[in-house]
Amino acid sequence: MDLYQSIRSLKDYPEEGITFRDINPLLKDPKAFQEALDQMVAKVKDIDFDHIVGVEARGFILGAAMAHELKCGFVPVRKPGKLVAEVIQKSYSLEYGQDSLEIQKDALDPGDKVLIVDDLIATGGTSKASKDLVEALGAQVVAFCYLIELKDLDGRKRVEPTPVYSVLQY
Amino acid sequence: MDLYQSIRSLKDYPEEGITFRDINPLLKDPKAFQEALDQMVAKVKDIDFDHIVGVEARGFILGAAMAHELKCGFVPVRKPGKLVAEVIQKSYSLEYGQDSLEIQKDALDPGDKVLIVDDLIATGGTSKASKDLVEALGAQVVAFCYLIELKDLDGRKRVEPTPVYSVLQY
Repeated sequence: MDLYQSIRSLKDYPEEGITFRDINPLLKDPKAFQEALDQMVAKVKDIDFDHIVGVEARGFILGAAMAHELKCGFVPVRKPGKLVAEVIQKSYSLEYGQDSLEIQKDALDPGDKVLIVDDLIATGGTSKASKDLVEALGAQVVAFCYLIELKDLDGRKRVEPTPVYSVLQY
Repeated sequence: MDLYQSIRSLKDYPEEGITFRDINPLLKDPKAFQEALDQMVAKVKDIDFDHIVGVEARGFILGAAMAHELKCGFVPVRKPGKLVAEVIQKSYSLEYGQDSLEIQKDALDPGDKVLIVDDLIATGGTSKASKDLVEALGAQVVAFCYLIELKDLDGRKRVEPTPVYSVLQY
């Protein structure tokens, strides 16, 4: 099954020169959704981790389904103001703009091993901020897993030496 | 397993008189997360539907994991400005305030049968708006499934006669 056919590409969105990859046609197709999850799971199933951290919002979709398949806990990293109780925050620059992410202080324990999941890695700014948040809690990021990697933007360099796995590359 | 013990209750949040139910302690506990999903799936597994619509953002977590388990497609209903391509929008009032939701125009086909999933039903405003969006595309909402139901707010009345299932009630 060619998963690339299930990705909708929008040229010059959200700004000129950027092609947005919309994963919703893939998600709504039961076979493509399962195949994408199977391929993501296959890439990380031999790695030792106990929690999946999913990045808001599309990382919730893929990360939670993977956590269910791999029977591990799920921890959300969210946009500011969305998490209750005590949080820590990290600012970062992304492909087009600036943003912040938060994690609950009691979301992870020191020594926890974490896989970070999102739909797409671009420049790696979101990935690096998520990693910083996990490490600030004393936990360890053992790998990143994405459905899509924009290779030219070289995001994996930003989180070296943590390994980065992706299913579809552009 | 007592799932109520995995819910963090914050009194008078976000405003006086409201108790916020934080599901993150449940999600991060592998056993509680799986048990919650198992119980949600058990409530709907005999209903005929081909897509799960998850409501941003916590509905993505539970809805996508259920879609993976039940091998059906996943469709996100999102806050305004988050979905690309052509969308339709619906405004609604919620427990504390006013908001809008969107769905992509090609997310569902006429005749599709849909289960709507979210973490919590309060007054039912979000649920009703999600149902309106699904029906505007010619698809049918066969049921709603929630982890938590705030019974005093009687949200299920808002979406009658569509059945509402929930695992934890307050």
